[in-house]
Amino acid sequence: MPTDSDDRWLAAAAALAERSRPLSRPNPAVAALLVKDGMVVGRGWTQAGGRPHAEAMALAQAGGQARGATLYVTLEPCAHQSTRGPACTDLVVAAGIARVVIGVTDPDDRTAGRGKARLRGAGIVAEGAGDARCAGSLAGYLAQAALGRPHVTLKLATSLDGCIALADGTSRWITGPAARAHTHRERARADAILVGGGTLRADAPALDVRLPGLEDRAPRRLVLTGGAVPDGWIALPDPQAIHDLPGVQYLFVEGGAQAAAAFLRADLVDRLLLYRAPVLLGGGKPALADLQLAGLWQAHDRWRLTDRRHFAPDTLEIFTRTR
Amino acid sequence: MPTDSDDRWLAAAAALAERSRPLSRPNPAVAALLVKDGMVVGRGWTQAGGRPHAEAMALAQAGGQARGATLYVTLEPCAHQSTRGPACTDLVVAAGIARVVIGVTDPDDRTAGRGKARLRGAGIVAEGAGDARCAGSLAGYLAQAALGRPHVTLKLATSLDGCIALADGTSRWITGPAARAHTHRERARADAILVGGGTLRADAPALDVRLPGLEDRAPRRLVLTGGAVPDGWIALPDPQAIHDLPGVQYLFVEGGAQAAAAFLRADLVDRLLLYRAPVLLGGGKPALADLQLAGLWQAHDRWRLTDRRHFAPDTLEIFTRTR
Repeated sequence: MPTDSDDRWLAAAAALAERSRPLSRPNPAVAALLVKDGMVVGRGWTQAGGRPHAEAMALAQAGGQARGATLYVTLEPCAHQSTRGPACTDLVVAAGIARVVIGVTDPDDRTAGRGKARLRGAGIVAEGAGDARCAGSLAGYLAQAALGRPHVTLKLATSLDGCIALADGTSRWITGPAARAHTHRERARADAILVGGGTLRADAPALDVRLPGLEDRAPRRLVLTGGAVPDGWIALPDPQAIHDLPGVQYLFVEGGAQAAAAFLRADLVDRLLLYRAPVLLGGGKPALADLQLAGLWQAHDRWRLTDRRHFAPDTLEIFTRTR
Repeated sequence: MPTDSDDRWLAAAAALAERSRPLSRPNPAVAALLVKDGMVVGRGWTQAGGRPHAEAMALAQAGGQARGATLYVTLEPCAHQSTRGPACTDLVVAAGIARVVIGVTDPDDRTAGRGKARLRGAGIVAEGAGDARCAGSLAGYLAQAALGRPHVTLKLATSLDGCIALADGTSRWITGPAARAHTHRERARADAILVGGGTLRADAPALDVRLPGLEDRAPRRLVLTGGAVPDGWIALPDPQAIHDLPGVQYLFVEGGAQAAAAFLRADLVDRLLLYRAPVLLGGGKPALADLQLAGLWQAHDRWRLTDRRHFAPDTLEIFTRTR
């Protein structure tokens, strides 16, 4: 049975998995910790391009110390051998691991419980499933598996009164450099970024990642439009078209107001990043176009504040869609 | 010279002064602590209607223990005898107080340094001035003295995207019962409440204080309009007309969007209460009418976040105008 300290090691593994995102594509961003006598003897995370897997990296790092250790892994170890490498379950068995604690059962048909069964068949104590932090670290992978679409983050950068620009369209800058740098980091973690057709025409945004060391992160660029798009952009006619983006685990929707409202109307936003500057812009452009609500009851009980950070003088609040 | 512990006693006195607000009118809400050997031997605050003064109440409570004690008082003790009672400086001298630490010098011409001089003339150590927390507790009194107008709080209750109602005007309720109860408490602390003419016509708000024990607190009701007003309401043709409200130390502006924008355009808001519910109302009514900004530079560096509270599921942020 998983213990309190199991919980903490799984949380540590979930945090470590951040390193894989989004470089591990097409694979999910998995992390593994090998723990022996309360000490970490190996750490691994899915490498760029998807291989080696997290377990393989951690086992290689631990070497002979892996024998008798406990493996904490955010996602069930794979049970299928591929042309790209051996099944992780085989590596775990061969290394003499005593116990495996799994964050989330792999929804992939080729594993889906078979990994755990295979470990148990080899005499290893294998347990765990449904850890919330591990599930959070795999949100994009799990959304594709369960819903056939990416995990969607909507970003809004507004004044205290909910404006994203002055009436004449001036929006540079409402939030300050620290908040904008954080947005670039969020872009770097996404597989694809989307803007509305109006924003593309008005602002021709580069949507690049302007952070030292991350300049080569170039998420796919999508635009919500039925019309023609410039080279290097992919047109989506409708928010539902995100169901046709199998390789995209994390989608970052940057606006403007029409695109944001289109995704909200379709209930296709899982996470809201709300950057707010301590300014009032009465009479400016609202952050959202019409959501066509039938009543206030349609707006309540949908969003939960899950994090808050200060990027002085601005504030970031993160809301999660309750489902 | 004031010490660290002086700072703490003055802060305690500033907090105690809350009890006088707004019952002390026409007087400021003052509080006094008598401290001897590190113990509080008397506490006082301006009583309903303005008398007895805080010092008189604290001295009466301390009795013979006042001799040799230190008096901490948020506002300089009065030096002028009135028909309503003796000057506090005379009471302090008669009680044998050893030392007086003053939060803020009284801007009233009849005292204005004379209180401190009179104490010193009687051989009492009298010091202190310009304590920020005491000044905060006297913000309305000091605003009237320095600017000839009340301290103005603007309240906004919005969605995350800055809407105060759906497009059809529905606004009951965006925020929940805990946030609304806090608004009633803020009303109870105000000398006058103002709404715009449109809000009065559309909502006919009662602007009463619906909190157990505070039902008899009935701030004056003002409406921003050039037109006729119902019985019990006072018309202000323009935000600048708050300069003609000498008895009002604290004004609470409740909206709507036009009245809020009129006060902001006139730069007559000192404190912003922003209640926000975790809902998105895209296409709803914006919190503020046009502020007629010439550029974003006009919006920046005016507001500072000074407090935040959670009234689940809502949040209150308090911003202070930097001047």
